[in-house]
Amino acid sequence: MDFQAVLNEIAEEITPLLGTGGGQVASYIPALARVSPMQFGIALRTCKGEEAAAGDSGRPFSIQSMSKVFSLTLAMRGLGDTLWERMGREPSGSPFNSLVQLETERGIPRNPFINAGAIAIADRLLTLGDAKSDMLALLSSLCGDTVVIDAEVAQSEADTGFRNAALANFMKGFGTLDNSVDTVLDVYFNQCAISMSCVQLARAAGYLCRDGTHPYGGAQVISEAQARRINALMLTCGTYDAAGEFAFRIGLPCKSGVGGGIVAVVPDTLSLCVWSPVLDKTGNSQLGRMALELFVAKTGLSVF
Amino acid sequence: MDFQAVLNEIAEEITPLLGTGGGQVASYIPALARVSPMQFGIALRTCKGEEAAAGDSGRPFSIQSMSKVFSLTLAMRGLGDTLWERMGREPSGSPFNSLVQLETERGIPRNPFINAGAIAIADRLLTLGDAKSDMLALLSSLCGDTVVIDAEVAQSEADTGFRNAALANFMKGFGTLDNSVDTVLDVYFNQCAISMSCVQLARAAGYLCRDGTHPYGGAQVISEAQARRINALMLTCGTYDAAGEFAFRIGLPCKSGVGGGIVAVVPDTLSLCVWSPVLDKTGNSQLGRMALELFVAKTGLSVF
Amino acid sequence: MDFQAVLNEIAEEITPLLGTGGGQVASYIPALARVSPMQFGIALRTCKGEEAAAGDSGRPFSIQSMSKVFSLTLAMRGLGDTLWERMGREPSGSPFNSLVQLETERGIPRNPFINAGAIAIADRLLTLGDAKSDMLALLSSLCGDTVVIDAEVAQSEADTGFRNAALANFMKGFGTLDNSVDTVLDVYFNQCAISMSCVQLARAAGYLCRDGTHPYGGAQVISEAQARRINALMLTCGTYDAAGEFAFRIGLPCKSGVGGGIVAVVPDTLSLCVWSPVLDKTGNSQLGRMALELFVAKTGLSVF
Amino acid sequence: MDFQAVLNEIAEEITPLLGTGGGQVASYIPALARVSPMQFGIALRTCKGEEAAAGDSGRPFSIQSMSKVFSLTLAMRGLGDTLWERMGREPSGSPFNSLVQLETERGIPRNPFINAGAIAIADRLLTLGDAKSDMLALLSSLCGDTVVIDAEVAQSEADTGFRNAALANFMKGFGTLDNSVDTVLDVYFNQCAISMSCVQLARAAGYLCRDGTHPYGGAQVISEAQARRINALMLTCGTYDAAGEFAFRIGLPCKSGVGGGIVAVVPDTLSLCVWSPVLDKTGNSQLGRMALELFVAKTGLSVF
Repeated sequence: MDFQAVLNEIAEEITPLLGTGGGQVASYIPALARVSPMQFGIALRTCKGEEAAAGDSGRPFSIQSMSKVFSLTLAMRGLGDTLWERMGREPSGSPFNSLVQLETERGIPRNPFINAGAIAIADRLLTLGDAKSDMLALLSSLCGDTVVIDAEVAQSEADTGFRNAALANFMKGFGTLDNSVDTVLDVYFNQCAISMSCVQLARAAGYLCRDGTHPYGGAQVISEAQARRINALMLTCGTYDAAGEFAFRIGLPCKSGVGGGIVAVVPDTLSLCVWSPVLDKTGNSQLGRMALELFVAKTGLSVF
Repeated sequence: MDFQAVLNEIAEEITPLLGTGGGQVASYIPALARVSPMQFGIALRTCKGEEAAAGDSGRPFSIQSMSKVFSLTLAMRGLGDTLWERMGREPSGSPFNSLVQLETERGIPRNPFINAGAIAIADRLLTLGDAKSDMLALLSSLCGDTVVIDAEVAQSEADTGFRNAALANFMKGFGTLDNSVDTVLDVYFNQCAISMSCVQLARAAGYLCRDGTHPYGGAQVISEAQARRINALMLTCGTYDAAGEFAFRIGLPCKSGVGGGIVAVVPDTLSLCVWSPVLDKTGNSQLGRMALELFVAKTGLSVF
Repeated sequence: MDFQAVLNEIAEEITPLLGTGGGQVASYIPALARVSPMQFGIALRTCKGEEAAAGDSGRPFSIQSMSKVFSLTLAMRGLGDTLWERMGREPSGSPFNSLVQLETERGIPRNPFINAGAIAIADRLLTLGDAKSDMLALLSSLCGDTVVIDAEVAQSEADTGFRNAALANFMKGFGTLDNSVDTVLDVYFNQCAISMSCVQLARAAGYLCRDGTHPYGGAQVISEAQARRINALMLTCGTYDAAGEFAFRIGLPCKSGVGGGIVAVVPDTLSLCVWSPVLDKTGNSQLGRMALELFVAKTGLSVF
Repeated sequence: MDFQAVLNEIAEEITPLLGTGGGQVASYIPALARVSPMQFGIALRTCKGEEAAAGDSGRPFSIQSMSKVFSLTLAMRGLGDTLWERMGREPSGSPFNSLVQLETERGIPRNPFINAGAIAIADRLLTLGDAKSDMLALLSSLCGDTVVIDAEVAQSEADTGFRNAALANFMKGFGTLDNSVDTVLDVYFNQCAISMSCVQLARAAGYLCRDGTHPYGGAQVISEAQARRINALMLTCGTYDAAGEFAFRIGLPCKSGVGGGIVAVVPDTLSLCVWSPVLDKTGNSQLGRMALELFVAKTGLSVF
């Protein structure tokens, strides 16, 4: 398939829609609020190493919750099944109920992709090693480029992250966290503040469509079963309270972030990243979502 | 692949475990409570028409919530996208919260596979036509056999279905149901009380792995997009509050019932049904689930 | 104290406000929806038998949830402390959570004044005797007049009471009700449909300010401790989710109904009823509430 | 009435029960966990200045949540009705739902006596002045004695108060707090760590039975209406999720703390404090509650 032609078509269809959909860019921190809404990028890399890209595919943006895929990867690699002693694997079910469910389930996050889950994973990574540099090393290796943290974003996250501090303190009270709340939050906020481009993210996610093998070297990043399971978690829990809708309309494992990025996986075929900063009311990129629907319609690629 | 050999192996591994797992058969109505726990069946049918079966694969059992796949099919076929005006598509998030969520979301069921959703679909089918006979006609056609309702089970469901009556009345109060509560519940209880065997169910689900085409004739039962979307709903919402776990460990669209059956789909490849009456604490067949894990491990078939 | 003068003053201050507050009369059934909003009545009876009244104090209106005080009285008299095996005594905490709490607390209503609690009490009264005629007999005796059910209201309640049917079915599923759902709801809807005037209700509630003794004969209707406890329940749970606000501003045991009536008790002193059909957003009579605040301000009577 | 005789009788009846009830002292911090369970004290002071005491009535203990009455008093005095812009006045409805309700109600605590409410009041007191010394000054003045903070308890509260930190951060995220989370929590933890005896607390609460006037000087501490309203809040919200039960069985405004103290008010008559460290499952002093029931039974004093 001529993927470059497909991405070009998508970019041509999406670009005229920039600024028309009525949504907003994330505004809870200044560094995100001032990102221009008039941007759209898309990039993919096949299992065989073929690449294609269109639009603003080389411009770095804040990966935010997309980082949860990679921190989960580090934790699964380091801890195996013991990771799941402090973490569930079920969809969370309601847009605003993370604290509610955390209370009902006595401090055990429902899955690794809600904030509470990712904070608990940051705690596990701190116990395993140097959480921040391990994460940067993994991402840099996966995409073959130097990946960095946007210090301004990280600081803003810390300054305004009261709800995440609430989650962390709440879990600490239940014994879910081993390390201090401040240290754990520092790791979490820094992970969210990593900057990457569509091209870098499409490359970095390559191990998820290659049965866990490194997109360049081919070494096993995680086992084949683990790669499949991350895909399963992305499909059921990767796009906030729109996971059912994404499965229904797009049918691919996806993980989104409030920076406007969405990474998607076609198992055994390719990994993909779209980016456009304006969010819909579920917190997912409005045009990114539309671009993924177009991609599936044009290529017929879907897990179902 | 020699599917018959695979199913034989699975049956050999599962049969010694009958009666050892500590779970219980569904006990809320006598007709289900007296089903022998010492039964296991498995059957599949490929897109090309190849069949395989092992164990008690020809014995009829109560399909219960597996009927929700077929009533959804009828409703999607009859209503298209207007169906979704009274129904969500998101996982429900918690084992016991159907009433809670129904209250929060003002009478709109979260998805078609929770009881509230299936009751709302029964209401839609009543408005569309003769809900009970349409359902039997669809199932009989799909499996090439005469499918019937177990009248004793239907009566028992009606006699003890107070919680379903609560859901139906609650939705009626919100305007989600057009028909009378009693009529809607009668359809719902009768759908749950249909009896089928693994072989019949594996055949009947064939349209879901064949892009919506009839497993025998090849006519379009529903559109390709609709078939994909039912598979997506099964994967995200088909096994109660264990949907995340099923996706994680099995990675196939599945729909289970408290009669102990689970139907699964490998898109473009085959449809499958397992049955064993003892349930785990999530309400899914204990050994059925194990059999599906074995099937995936032995064949490498998974959507991820 | 010259209570007649006090009530006259209150009526003079309240009457000009009729039709100005922006609320609505209850509209879920036609018989309530067509009640003129331009009505206000107030009546009281002291422990010594002194009476005073002003405004539309002799006009009958639908007592609705005020009936819960009297059905509770019958149940406490008939069952003593065993009543509390199926019923809590705590405030319910949130305007819309009756079903939520009923689910959390496994079918045990939180107190006798939420709908679920009153439905469970109707069930207990059916087991004790002839619930409907026992209730009419009690009320007729207490106010020295013939009290009747408004059949049109009762029928409308039954026709539209889906949410109450949901509550009853839900409790039936948990085993909280002994009698059939239909029979229990029939009693409940008929109790709510009783018509009484302010004068009748002020008289009927007299036993609550007289240590449980009959307002006329002086015989013990319930024990002194039981009368105190009903007052305590009225103060903590008697006015829906405004019970804290009523305690804070008025400081008297009160029970309201969506017909616009509120009965109040000054222990050892008097019983009081106000009525005005327009409701505020908490479901309590807007001007009735204001009249009670005026009453407390003018007389200094309050339990605190 | 010979109150000294009444308290002597109560102490005689309660003392043999020490150590027999099966409850536990609060154990979440070492300083509370090592308090001997074998202690009981009771003291009262009438509006006329008569005093009575029995048992360990002069021994200081940690007042914990009883401090909420006095911080509310300071906030009502300083802010008047504007206090209620960030605070509700309704019972909370469920033992464990403070975070749930805080989420549902967008960061507005349901009343000033749940932890979230008292933390929000600590924030208001910080804006008004020197919260810690204002509190000590008020208490010292009210009981005519020097009141101090137990520094070890305050430190332990801070070290283990993750859930309170969660509440504070959560409210900060909603804009309910003006001051920094750390400063607010420091005030809150120090208020909880104040030590006082039954005699001191019975004296200090005297303004609540004297229409807001100082128990010694007679100056107005707060207005008469404010005093009544604090009593109303104590009755509806003062004893965690047992407020309905306390109203039902005891019928007096009460505020308890996990140190085992309960302060009670008989309006226009007396203020009272009981203390015994073993808690029941609702977090209220087991024998303190029983002592209050005895007091009401022996004296006939109750607001109902």
